[in-house]
Amino acid sequence: MVSRTATRLAADPPAIATAHFLAEADPYHPSANPDGYINLGTAENKLMWDLLEPVMTAPQSIHPSDIHYGQLYGTEPLRAGIAALLGRTWRARVDPTNLVVVSGATAALDIAATALCDPGEVIVVPAPYYAALNVDLVGRSGARLVPVSMADADGFALDPVALDRALHRLRHDGAVVRALAVTSPSNPQGQVHPAATLRELLRVATAHHVDVIADEIYAHCVFGSDRFVSMLDPDVVGGVLKADPNRIHVVWGFAKDFGLSGLKVGVLHTTGTATRAASRALAYFAPASTHTQALLRDLLADTVWVRRFLAESRQRLATSYRGAVADLTRFGIGYVPAQAGFTVWIDLRTCLPQPTYAAEHALWERIVGIAKVNILPGAVFGSPEPGWFRLCHALDPTLVHHGVARLAAMTGHARRSA
Amino acid sequence: MVSRTATRLAADPPAIATAHFLAEADPYHPSANPDGYINLGTAENKLMWDLLEPVMTAPQSIHPSDIHYGQLYGTEPLRAGIAALLGRTWRARVDPTNLVVVSGATAALDIAATALCDPGEVIVVPAPYYAALNVDLVGRSGARLVPVSMADADGFALDPVALDRALHRLRHDGAVVRALAVTSPSNPQGQVHPAATLRELLRVATAHHVDVIADEIYAHCVFGSDRFVSMLDPDVVGGVLKADPNRIHVVWGFAKDFGLSGLKVGVLHTTGTATRAASRALAYFAPASTHTQALLRDLLADTVWVRRFLAESRQRLATSYRGAVADLTRFGIGYVPAQAGFTVWIDLRTCLPQPTYAAEHALWERIVGIAKVNILPGAVFGSPEPGWFRLCHALDPTLVHHGVARLAAMTGHARRSA
Repeated sequence: MVSRTATRLAADPPAIATAHFLAEADPYHPSANPDGYINLGTAENKLMWDLLEPVMTAPQSIHPSDIHYGQLYGTEPLRAGIAALLGRTWRARVDPTNLVVVSGATAALDIAATALCDPGEVIVVPAPYYAALNVDLVGRSGARLVPVSMADADGFALDPVALDRALHRLRHDGAVVRALAVTSPSNPQGQVHPAATLRELLRVATAHHVDVIADEIYAHCVFGSDRFVSMLDPDVVGGVLKADPNRIHVVWGFAKDFGLSGLKVGVLHTTGTATRAASRALAYFAPASTHTQALLRDLLADTVWVRRFLAESRQRLATSYRGAVADLTRFGIGYVPAQAGFTVWIDLRTCLPQPTYAAEHALWERIVGIAKVNILPGAVFGSPEPGWFRLCHALDPTLVHHGVARLAAMTGHARRSA
Repeated sequence: MVSRTATRLAADPPAIATAHFLAEADPYHPSANPDGYINLGTAENKLMWDLLEPVMTAPQSIHPSDIHYGQLYGTEPLRAGIAALLGRTWRARVDPTNLVVVSGATAALDIAATALCDPGEVIVVPAPYYAALNVDLVGRSGARLVPVSMADADGFALDPVALDRALHRLRHDGAVVRALAVTSPSNPQGQVHPAATLRELLRVATAHHVDVIADEIYAHCVFGSDRFVSMLDPDVVGGVLKADPNRIHVVWGFAKDFGLSGLKVGVLHTTGTATRAASRALAYFAPASTHTQALLRDLLADTVWVRRFLAESRQRLATSYRGAVADLTRFGIGYVPAQAGFTVWIDLRTCLPQPTYAAEHALWERIVGIAKVNILPGAVFGSPEPGWFRLCHALDPTLVHHGVARLAAMTGHARRSA
């Protein structure tokens, strides 16, 4: 009774969302629910409420224009505020005209994919990759996601040479590749891509005549020593001969950098006339609330507050990351060093009886079902190798501490003496 | 460089939106901009700001759960509030589980169409119909909208017999018809469909095994003497043998009844297991802001305020409607009597040199371009007959007054002596 598209989507709910709501329905509490779930699966920043609360609960300055129809690709004042913020981060002038604001980064990714791809056309993504790309870039566009394995030698770091090889192979096989999608900083690993690597990636994309979709949703969550480099940074786009900036489409949003994942305000930056017109037309189906846009407009207008908030957020992320890896180290659990984001990519390969995804899945079921810790298995991120898991640290450190202890106990990692 | 879907969507922007932003960019003001546009084209209720302002600008009660990931088909408290409101209006128990809250009624219509239709499958709609259905039900789903002309004898009122004939003909022609879509109260005419007519429509749909999509976005905007009857009213769904309530999908939202068109909170009520699962999966791509959902949750919780607001809104709409039709009558411009909504369907047939849509379009261009009054021509509503226009009255009465005067002067309607 339902359409093929709907059947396909309903049959394959995003694994992250399913695990999230399972864990959130029965949350751990030290006294009230000691056997509840510890949710280290959802990439949310829960460290910033004390700074957000005054902003969120203050009387809002709302005018009639804030409750009536606004431009369905974002109000002008909010796009101006976002352009100013991203301009500083990207070290490039950002024209608000090129911003398409929609109800979340998922919608922005869907729009980028739908604007670029006809059903069956291919988007290549380095693996491991942000699990929901499987749905975001594919679910409604009908595009096909082709993961390309990065090598585990340096934590599955972005390797443009591997992408180049894959693009050659795909073309040889007759696939129509329309885009390379990359998360930057990377998710799940939390790596910051150096300018040289991004230049190389852009060179590959340019040579193969494919667009680049850069998901930069963690742009302001870099707590390591390396600087975040946007795909549109002059060091990247300016350093590649014949690179066409119109073929670079950047996604950003308020979910991660501002810890406002529920507000569902995402943005696509796209400069080509045709992709911009297409993206605006698609934005009509997923507009952001003008009431929420007014809140964010006022939030961004206070640039002093924004600078302090983002700096404080980076500090707290550094602390929560250090706490998590100290816990992991204490139990001898390996991980890929991160510089950004909310997550650590941890190594439980030695816990698998065989190096298979079936064994990984069985281990995951025990971790969630018995240890009641929600972390996500590598398979959902297209991990090139079984045994890796993603653990989120941007929350109450006692939860992380307790979660890692449960995980270690379940997987037979003994606490090391100091 | 862009996909076929995107090319199609970008080539055909919704006429209503285009005209709206043209008019809003250069608005009339008696002293500052006397030659500006008078926008009587956009169906917004601009009469209620004095009652909305205190709600919109009060400090919001926001908790951490209101800024983090919520169920992507709507938070539980908001769905409970909507279920209580719609339950009273529909005179039926509404289970919040069957509500899918998304970023606007457009998204809800898109989801209903995409859940039901594969590309090329047909949705039948009585014409004239809400212009944006052309995009909302079609743009992303790939469904095909087939308008069926209603007779002008009684203002193009809903005629299930004509729909029955059309469904027979379509089946005979080999089309796969999946749904009948109906706006109730009707838009553009503002008619309230009697229970007997809706029963008949449901009987037709049931006999032809097609679903019903009922757009009830104006449910609480009935200012005439007839009572609003939902498609799910016991008098309708209970009165049709073998009718399957799972095949009735109702769309509602806050844009019209609460005058909050910018907030983009729409809802789809669907009870079948498969359509509900499909709709939830599709909601993932167009979620509503939890910040705005919290506002509306608190607004609905104050049921006394809601009752007073909706009653006052109906009174003001009655007044603005009476003012508009008094103006029209004064100039001898005919119209279809309305009982609901923000618009009057006016008759400018005598102003066309020939009874063609080309003549209607030429007249429209003069009305917008020379008289600078934005009203929408019948063609965009699939009007069965050229010469009809839709005029909105739910705004400052002096604007309506002045707009009708401009329109009358342009079309050669002389003011009648009292």
